[in-house]
Amino acid sequence: MTELPDSARQQLKEQVGGPSADHIRRVFERYAALFTVGDTDGIAALYAEDAVVRDPVTSPAVEGRENIRAWYQSAFDSMGGGMEMKLEGAVRIAGHLAAGALIVRTHNHETVMRVETLDVMEFGDDGLIRRMDAYFGPSNYHMEQG
Amino acid sequence: MTELPDSARQQLKEQVGGPSADHIRRVFERYAALFTVGDTDGIAALYAEDAVVRDPVTSPAVEGRENIRAWYQSAFDSMGGGMEMKLEGAVRIAGHLAAGALIVRTHNHETVMRVETLDVMEFGDDGLIRRMDAYFGPSNYHMEQG
Repeated sequence: MTELPDSARQQLKEQVGGPSADHIRRVFERYAALFTVGDTDGIAALYAEDAVVRDPVTSPAVEGRENIRAWYQSAFDSMGGGMEMKLEGAVRIAGHLAAGALIVRTHNHETVMRVETLDVMEFGDDGLIRRMDAYFGPSNYHMEQG
Repeated sequence: MTELPDSARQQLKEQVGGPSADHIRRVFERYAALFTVGDTDGIAALYAEDAVVRDPVTSPAVEGRENIRAWYQSAFDSMGGGMEMKLEGAVRIAGHLAAGALIVRTHNHETVMRVETLDVMEFGDDGLIRRMDAYFGPSNYHMEQG
């Protein structure tokens, strides 16, 4: 890691403890890979037992790992499969909090839809996701050539 | 805008009212441009009178437009000028909430430092920023060739 300038060290002094940046980055990568293959058990295992998901962030919260698993299953079922999720740029990591921009492409229609989303996650000391809020809306849906 | 699929329309039905996506996107672009030239009055004018900033999100809140203006001035003074901020990818917009990945390059040292940051903002109906949280940490600092 780059040696931090003094100004940054002062600014970031509250970011102590919690899972490592490497762990958090790997969870984001694993989340995108599991999402792409529709592995809801794998996704649920990334979440804490009492985790809370808002996807999008403006919708009512889904609470608890089993409800979260069912929510992803329902989302995958309604899409009929064929969603690919990729990170766009580096995951930003601030202690227990992290945010990463993502691109989802859906292939289940005649055309390909690209959705720009962005997940903010809070992690527990155990490395599990305690909260996930997904930022996207109508302006983030785009048609691509099929 | 792309015509939304039924599943998305249902999912996004809570995102009503508030400033337009175009307005929010322009605020992010303007924020990056004003940050790059160090225009603290211009930046402060984007914020509501009682806005709250956490930059990074793990640090104590800076509350109120005038305190926010002074905070940016202090940040620019401590860097000695020469910070360039650019959006990385599209701004994700969810009703009154929005998030955008940003890259900041500092040119005041012999080498160039690249910092990956990501701002989550909440907007009021008047189009002003009510809350800004910046996500970044030590793993987001990188040296580049000067």
